[in-house]
Amino acid sequence: MKLIANFIGLQTGRNIAILNQKDAEELGVSEGGRIRIEAKNKSIVAIVNISRTLKKGKVILSDEIKKLAKIKSNEEVNVELALQPEAVKAIRAKLDGKELSYEEFFSIVKSAVNNELSEIELTSFVVGLHERGLSFEEAAMLSTAMVNVGERLELNKKRIFDKHSIGGVPGDKTTMLVVPIVASAGLTIPKTSSRAITSAAGTADRVEVIMPVNLSIEEMKEVVEKTNGCMVWGGALHLSPADDIFIQIEKPLGIDPLLFPSILSKKKAVGATDLVIDIPVGESVKIGNVEEGFRLSQKFIKLGKLLGIKIKTALTSGIQPIGSTIGPALEAKEALEVIEGKKNSLDLIDKATSIAGILLEMAGKARNGEGKELAKKLLRTKAEKKLREIIEAQGGDPRIKSEDIKIGDKSFDYFAEKSGMILWFDNYDLAQIARIAGAPKDKGAGILLYKKLGDNVKAGEKLLTIFAERSTKLQEAEKYAKEANFVRIGSYNEVLYKKVEEVSKKREKFMIVR
Amino acid sequence: MKLIANFIGLQTGRNIAILNQKDAEELGVSEGGRIRIEAKNKSIVAIVNISRTLKKGKVILSDEIKKLAKIKSNEEVNVELALQPEAVKAIRAKLDGKELSYEEFFSIVKSAVNNELSEIELTSFVVGLHERGLSFEEAAMLSTAMVNVGERLELNKKRIFDKHSIGGVPGDKTTMLVVPIVASAGLTIPKTSSRAITSAAGTADRVEVIMPVNLSIEEMKEVVEKTNGCMVWGGALHLSPADDIFIQIEKPLGIDPLLFPSILSKKKAVGATDLVIDIPVGESVKIGNVEEGFRLSQKFIKLGKLLGIKIKTALTSGIQPIGSTIGPALEAKEALEVIEGKKNSLDLIDKATSIAGILLEMAGKARNGEGKELAKKLLRTKAEKKLREIIEAQGGDPRIKSEDIKIGDKSFDYFAEKSGMILWFDNYDLAQIARIAGAPKDKGAGILLYKKLGDNVKAGEKLLTIFAERSTKLQEAEKYAKEANFVRIGSYNEVLYKKVEEVSKKREKFMIVR
Repeated sequence: MKLIANFIGLQTGRNIAILNQKDAEELGVSEGGRIRIEAKNKSIVAIVNISRTLKKGKVILSDEIKKLAKIKSNEEVNVELALQPEAVKAIRAKLDGKELSYEEFFSIVKSAVNNELSEIELTSFVVGLHERGLSFEEAAMLSTAMVNVGERLELNKKRIFDKHSIGGVPGDKTTMLVVPIVASAGLTIPKTSSRAITSAAGTADRVEVIMPVNLSIEEMKEVVEKTNGCMVWGGALHLSPADDIFIQIEKPLGIDPLLFPSILSKKKAVGATDLVIDIPVGESVKIGNVEEGFRLSQKFIKLGKLLGIKIKTALTSGIQPIGSTIGPALEAKEALEVIEGKKNSLDLIDKATSIAGILLEMAGKARNGEGKELAKKLLRTKAEKKLREIIEAQGGDPRIKSEDIKIGDKSFDYFAEKSGMILWFDNYDLAQIARIAGAPKDKGAGILLYKKLGDNVKAGEKLLTIFAERSTKLQEAEKYAKEANFVRIGSYNEVLYKKVEEVSKKREKFMIVR
Repeated sequence: MKLIANFIGLQTGRNIAILNQKDAEELGVSEGGRIRIEAKNKSIVAIVNISRTLKKGKVILSDEIKKLAKIKSNEEVNVELALQPEAVKAIRAKLDGKELSYEEFFSIVKSAVNNELSEIELTSFVVGLHERGLSFEEAAMLSTAMVNVGERLELNKKRIFDKHSIGGVPGDKTTMLVVPIVASAGLTIPKTSSRAITSAAGTADRVEVIMPVNLSIEEMKEVVEKTNGCMVWGGALHLSPADDIFIQIEKPLGIDPLLFPSILSKKKAVGATDLVIDIPVGESVKIGNVEEGFRLSQKFIKLGKLLGIKIKTALTSGIQPIGSTIGPALEAKEALEVIEGKKNSLDLIDKATSIAGILLEMAGKARNGEGKELAKKLLRTKAEKKLREIIEAQGGDPRIKSEDIKIGDKSFDYFAEKSGMILWFDNYDLAQIARIAGAPKDKGAGILLYKKLGDNVKAGEKLLTIFAERSTKLQEAEKYAKEANFVRIGSYNEVLYKKVEEVSKKREKFMIVR
């Protein structure tokens, strides 16, 4: 059937074709069915929506189809009934509890990135995985399929090192130290990072304060070939385009059955052979205690073996922010200050050199147990030079100094309400305060902490400063900070945390960062 | 069919009848089927096992049947095919995801306590609840059914107060202070407690050091009528006999779908109208953070409303032992020392007076926010006298002094390996050390702590003493303590907790105490 293509700026994330009811009946397709659209050697499958008001002989196509098939407005296209894709059978098999083959996973992933699957089908797949689970072999096959439909970074290196954090800790600028440390030792580390979703800053947000991060995969390759390392935003690289689709289904459901394939497919796509995964542990991050961290570690390590990635995990303190800053510019400044030797953020240095040390030991640059010392030495001697090389290669100004970084000029000091020891921070509330102040969008917004866990404060002493670029946002952050109980000051002998007398609303938790 | 009853000391927790194969065929019953046994006006349903070697005309009965029906060896009994009990249909309905009625729950609970259900059927019920869940209404009906098949404490009081802790914190002797405090204010508090399952001491084990706890329900009633309170072992009271059966299925599976009915049926059985539930929060107890505690609280409160019990919860610190002692005698001694005014265990006093304060406020003895102060006052002035009244009423020596309590005479001092702040205790390991030293069986075994969270220690300073009654057990506990990393001493700036490189065995966690 010949139809005239029309576009109305319809963006759905999927290939959608709206047909007149009579045309649909003639084709023998109903709502949610599929048609194949052929135009100038391009053939595309689209999901059908039906309209009674659309003129017969016309078809409205979503912009995704325009992009894929380069169809023009009012162009005549040939339309015919399409068969159900293999992917749908595979999804139904998973719903029925069957183990899937590589070919089945590939068909699902391929159809997903070709926008051929409806929201119902994608949701069924995600929920099916959640309910029925994945064996290790299935997770490995799904990861591989996800790699095979995306872009890959091809480096002519035998071993490629990488790190990943499952996130949740505010102020965690560890990557900004780890990459220059290990790259300065000659290790190849093509680091991709995400932007903030629910946090006050993702690594890509932090790094962007001192250098461009929106690189293409070719540009990334050039940077790594020149400097051994890079710190770029992973979002535009299409390393695992299927994951970008699945995550949109998982997020609103609050489930993440694709966690492992999601993380590891992206690592596999940059060719990683040696990976350290940072698993923060604490009551307000995803992993509540060391035992849970152990169990998660086991799964990562086992799956890594199937994928040919040697994985070690670092279970780290997730009970308070890392360093003394939260928010993109404040964090970038702190990381730079530490590299320049101007600030001694003990926990940040401990964490970065611990993780860099594991990578150095994996690479054979240091004997077991000596990696951390080597990392500390490299941080003092070679990391700054390496960081500036990376900044320059990514298109930034290599002469940037920490004092050049602009922090929001509106600020509010928060004082301790009572005297005692700092016993507890609420990571969620601290991130919220920074977000309400404007982070991550307003790069200069955030928090500077003067006290950390175990420190003693006096009533009226300054605890932290909130920075913002706009006074309305500062006021809102100030209000939130005053109402939230984000810090517990006192004595461990005060045992009653809270009395619950009636039902109360629950609040959202951090999601694991992919 | 007439058969001759035989007993061979078979104890299965269930009514089991072993039939000769031919007799079974004649009756039309197969393995796992049911027969009705009639003897002298007693009629009992039993589950059939089949034997080829048993002589025809004989039936071997489990001792549970002997006890219920008072059948003698070689007595002739009448045996006939029994219908499938209603309970089995109800279990199948739950497996199919149906909501059950009160009558259905009652049939299950009744058959369970009559030993009429096979292990397969009981397991199906527990797993069915785990998989299909219980609505609040169902949980209330199940709780009520569990109460209605058990014993009840009938007190002529309008309001009856109670407390419960879901447990997990070593050294938690809070109940030993709460009961005398609130009873001294005139509140009725018929407290039943459990013995240790996986911990170093249950409240019943602690209390037993200073008074008998194995009371009958009539004796318990007498004590409460005389003194307003009691502290007895709940295990022998048959307050919720169905729970004692279900828990044996849940424990090996590591699931507890009956948690709420289990706890609340026992409270309902003593007539509780006002209940405070203590929910310890921390990374090594069941509830990892305050939010989880909130959610659990909501469920308790809602279910309480359906059952006519006013419930408040106390979310309390579960990050370290309460007070400075772990193990029955050491804990009883500490509780008594605090009541006698000889020891100032700040966290124990804070916890006990917080919980007692909530009860006093619920009773209208104190205005909101003033209960804790009143509890502190009662602890200083009237609690000791009340405790001694209870000791006497339960058959103990009311003149007992804390210094009379015998602690194990074998001991081992454990010294800090490095200097720094005490940052973290592993509750599980501390309980394990005390258990390996002999607790709860050896009442004098346990741990005395000299340092708590937030305290600073020097390398070589004494951290704790392990006590035991037997030197072999002391040696084992000493060995375990030296190998376990049960305490973290240092600085919050040390961020790396643990590096995981290979798969490692997981260890058992505490179960919620019922």
